[in-house]
Amino acid sequence: MKCYPVPRENLVLSIDNLKDDIPEEYLSHKECYENVIRKGSVLYDIFSELSKDRKHKAHQAPSNAYRISDGIMQNVNPFLLHFALFVPAITNQATPEQQAEFLKHGFGIIGTYAQTELGHGTFLRGLETTATLDLETDEFVLNSPTLTSYKWWPGGLGHTANHCVVMAQLYVKGKCHGPHLFFVQIRDIETHEPLPGLKLGEIGAKMGFNTADNGFLGFHNFRIPRNNMLMKNSQVLKDGTYVESKNEKLTYGSMVFVRVYLLSDMAYMLARAATISVRYSAVRHQSHIKPDEPEVQILDFVIQQHKLFISIATSHAFKICGLWLWQTYSKVMEDIGKGSMDRLPELHALSCCLKTTSTRDAGWLIEQCRLACGGHGYLMSSNLPSLYTTATAAITYEGESTVLLLQTARYLIKSWKRAMEGESLPATVSFLSEYFNKRYNKWENTPKGIVDGLKLVVAGVTKMCAESIQKHVSRGQQYEEAWNSSSVQLIKASEAYSRALLCEVFWFEVDKVSSTLSNNLAVVLKQLAELYITYWALEKRGDLLVYTTISKDDLDKLQERYEELLALIRPNAVGLVDSFDIRDEILCSTLGAYDGRVYERMMEHALKSPLNAETVNQSFHKYMKPVILKHKI
Amino acid sequence: MKCYPVPRENLVLSIDNLKDDIPEEYLSHKECYENVIRKGSVLYDIFSELSKDRKHKAHQAPSNAYRISDGIMQNVNPFLLHFALFVPAITNQATPEQQAEFLKHGFGIIGTYAQTELGHGTFLRGLETTATLDLETDEFVLNSPTLTSYKWWPGGLGHTANHCVVMAQLYVKGKCHGPHLFFVQIRDIETHEPLPGLKLGEIGAKMGFNTADNGFLGFHNFRIPRNNMLMKNSQVLKDGTYVESKNEKLTYGSMVFVRVYLLSDMAYMLARAATISVRYSAVRHQSHIKPDEPEVQILDFVIQQHKLFISIATSHAFKICGLWLWQTYSKVMEDIGKGSMDRLPELHALSCCLKTTSTRDAGWLIEQCRLACGGHGYLMSSNLPSLYTTATAAITYEGESTVLLLQTARYLIKSWKRAMEGESLPATVSFLSEYFNKRYNKWENTPKGIVDGLKLVVAGVTKMCAESIQKHVSRGQQYEEAWNSSSVQLIKASEAYSRALLCEVFWFEVDKVSSTLSNNLAVVLKQLAELYITYWALEKRGDLLVYTTISKDDLDKLQERYEELLALIRPNAVGLVDSFDIRDEILCSTLGAYDGRVYERMMEHALKSPLNAETVNQSFHKYMKPVILKHKI
Repeated sequence: MKCYPVPRENLVLSIDNLKDDIPEEYLSHKECYENVIRKGSVLYDIFSELSKDRKHKAHQAPSNAYRISDGIMQNVNPFLLHFALFVPAITNQATPEQQAEFLKHGFGIIGTYAQTELGHGTFLRGLETTATLDLETDEFVLNSPTLTSYKWWPGGLGHTANHCVVMAQLYVKGKCHGPHLFFVQIRDIETHEPLPGLKLGEIGAKMGFNTADNGFLGFHNFRIPRNNMLMKNSQVLKDGTYVESKNEKLTYGSMVFVRVYLLSDMAYMLARAATISVRYSAVRHQSHIKPDEPEVQILDFVIQQHKLFISIATSHAFKICGLWLWQTYSKVMEDIGKGSMDRLPELHALSCCLKTTSTRDAGWLIEQCRLACGGHGYLMSSNLPSLYTTATAAITYEGESTVLLLQTARYLIKSWKRAMEGESLPATVSFLSEYFNKRYNKWENTPKGIVDGLKLVVAGVTKMCAESIQKHVSRGQQYEEAWNSSSVQLIKASEAYSRALLCEVFWFEVDKVSSTLSNNLAVVLKQLAELYITYWALEKRGDLLVYTTISKDDLDKLQERYEELLALIRPNAVGLVDSFDIRDEILCSTLGAYDGRVYERMMEHALKSPLNAETVNQSFHKYMKPVILKHKI
Repeated sequence: MKCYPVPRENLVLSIDNLKDDIPEEYLSHKECYENVIRKGSVLYDIFSELSKDRKHKAHQAPSNAYRISDGIMQNVNPFLLHFALFVPAITNQATPEQQAEFLKHGFGIIGTYAQTELGHGTFLRGLETTATLDLETDEFVLNSPTLTSYKWWPGGLGHTANHCVVMAQLYVKGKCHGPHLFFVQIRDIETHEPLPGLKLGEIGAKMGFNTADNGFLGFHNFRIPRNNMLMKNSQVLKDGTYVESKNEKLTYGSMVFVRVYLLSDMAYMLARAATISVRYSAVRHQSHIKPDEPEVQILDFVIQQHKLFISIATSHAFKICGLWLWQTYSKVMEDIGKGSMDRLPELHALSCCLKTTSTRDAGWLIEQCRLACGGHGYLMSSNLPSLYTTATAAITYEGESTVLLLQTARYLIKSWKRAMEGESLPATVSFLSEYFNKRYNKWENTPKGIVDGLKLVVAGVTKMCAESIQKHVSRGQQYEEAWNSSSVQLIKASEAYSRALLCEVFWFEVDKVSSTLSNNLAVVLKQLAELYITYWALEKRGDLLVYTTISKDDLDKLQERYEELLALIRPNAVGLVDSFDIRDEILCSTLGAYDGRVYERMMEHALKSPLNAETVNQSFHKYMKPVILKHKI
């Protein structure tokens, strides 16, 4: 803990509470929760101390909160949404007076953000929770009219938070004004008992995130002051007058923020998986390459390099694209501050498809890393299973992947139409105009040529989608039906777009920065970028053959180059994952620790299993013994 | 339990022990084990009763054992390996006299099969456990000379089994004769204590299979009678003479058996995932297709059909290919009985690549089903997470997937060389000869045409691999080095081969059987087979464009046909999964039950969480309260 400059005497709880006696995978669901509250409370305490120092701005820094809890606890912190969504929702959507009031206790309350319901997720208009203005008492009455209207999923809601921001359909004088946000206390601060009129609990065990305390919440005529509606953008006055928001899209901001953030989060998860599996593959010896020589490091098998090096490269790709997307995000937010929202749709389209592609890629690449470690990767002590179950959740949360891809597709189709009408397009989609105007080059077997080719694929698929929609419309479907009929292809357009973006940004940003680096470093970074691009050119060769002038001979050369790159990267592989610089305490893996003591750690970890504390388990005497003795001769 | 015709009075334990009070996901690792022993012991008892009836042959029927435990317990039974590997190892590798001796207690002993070690898995020659003959005492002395030589992974070994079959390097008079099998008692039958000279325990928590009680085992000068070596094929005589096995390959049999079996097991797991996700998609309403109409069943989204129908089709494909492979297996075993082992390499090649492809496909398709259920698919109560973590283990166990694919590739390369030399080839690879002799047709846009095209891909990639190996050899590499250098492509050849096999067998077996079916049923089955083939033609269009004469226009037509098939299957989708006929007790899913009460079940299940038994968890008072009260104004 020496890295956190908070004097011990300032803390209410002892820092020793951060230690685990038993590895978490041996605990019950309930014990897991209690364990994370023990550790999370210490961190919350440290955080509150840090936040007194203005430099740290911890109170408004979800990514710091996340990192710290992640590193120390190897787990999702049920206090996470306090920083990641609760406080940001208030600071973005409440008036300055409301902010002062709602946040006056600082770390004295613990909040979460309750949007998703049992029956509705990404489709917000379908939410069923109601907030009805009672003009007489100047209050809103919150209700959950159906089972499906129960809030369901918010992290920290089950047993941890005592406040939340709730999204509910606003009803004033019998008229529905759609979903709005409300500040709601849900538990007593002293006793922590749920307030009367609420049904509150946790939603049960999940594939991962089992310390996140995801909860459910139902309202029965639950009253809050009118002023608890977050009124920065739209308002309800005392007399019931509804004042509309000037721009609905302003509420986008925080959702885009989290999606942008996820890109670098996935880079980090992938870096951890790559570190574990590459180090293990350097320690593990198995089988021979030359029959007369000793067993080899499995990292010397080309097929193992094929499985693992793409994860190293992808982690860098996500990191660099994440930074690029941050810059775009900041610029767009700056523009919005100046009153221009022109680039908001572009940012939205970029963040939707990149969020989806990065979370999906991270998921299957982590699994590929795990499977590359053979059976041992299946042990919880390798930490690869948890990395997967945590990463894969991101495919769904903060916008379901298919829904998001279709949003980007909508932007591509709109942009295609604008290209056809001769309008100029933002730089990130200007290739559509070039394609429409048939300004494109012959295939060139270089990274830049591949990037150009991948863009041709996006343009070609987008054009085909536009034609498919048109075809269905001409056969009598409404536009939205035709959209649905074409959705398999629309998803493809969106996926192709994110792939082209990732390759382009990775290659050109590396190229840009490499002149500022030592020659040795620049060479290695370029190898990784080229590996990434070549990998995807080969994966997508079907598309390239359809939409570009690439030849079979070009593909053979790319395959050969790909195998060359694997051989070039091999000597640096362990160095490359070491350079991710992830501490053993964060890796938390018997297979991936820096010292390479794989088998010793595996045995030590196994011996901590409570089952191994006794040579004979009680269930033998109770159940097995009578059955087997029945048969003994 | 009424389906098992065992009178209650014959059982030692009460059948009530099969019920769960608390869903398993809320238990600790240790409680999980104790829970499964409670239930597993009852099943073992029922089984032993059933086995008295010769019709059931339960003692030698691993698949029945597996099914029954799977159905009732939703979990892997630590007694499974007794039936699946322990008894078969003895019946296949021990002499009749040994069998009578070792199995004399029938169900009075519980066994497992200990092969894998901490340091070695699929590469058997690398195993380190030693069994050294002591001529003086006529015993073998078992030792684990290193940490990596500890047995590690065998199911049931940790705390359940009291016997096992151990694979160890046989040493006689200072000479190593390679890995052999030994019958070893490891725990006292009465007290269940590990015998002196053994280190025994469980290996810890895993991604799944947490009730399988996978264990470790170390030997320290542990003595067993010489006769405990399984001596059906090779023998060690009293004077230390080693009698070699007539055919080493005879030991293949049981490994092939399990691999063949896995195909139908994966069909069954996929059927469960498809049932859950299709039913849920019929219950779940979300968003609109036409703006002016109510929210639709999400199954009406074409992209949802795209995600799910392939799983229905694949389950049938695996089932049908599994049956076909069984027939091949039986025929080959019959031939071996008659002294001919000609088809053993072919069977080995088929079972290796089909095992790998079916387990991999099952894994990602189950994940696709889970993700298609949005956030709710992430809940343990959906049962989709467990289906995935169980299915994905099969990618590794019983032969690591990459190793197996390379074995099939070796067979393909050998066959290609034989084709070049004009030798005739078995039917399953005769297309290589045709390709070599340039006897192949122009592309035909039909299922049969696609199957032919997929075979051309296999031949084309195989040829390329052979050339690549040749190229590396001509550049100075040894053959095995060249093999390693070409392995990315070799894997591709193997994968392409299994895909062609699956498509061919599925299509032609359905075609063959359809004349015996009602017209309505034949139509639907053919739609599924065509969907499967078309799906894979589109997925593999890069290969088809390279190795066949398919045109871009053909691909567009296939895409259109694919979307037509989705629309044709949609009205039958729920009927198709109902026809898998999986009982709710086996599905064990809040999302997938037959009655469609999704949301009610989810809430009922959540309320069973022990955390929800109290409104305030003790950790609040102990940890959270002091921290938050520090800040309250």
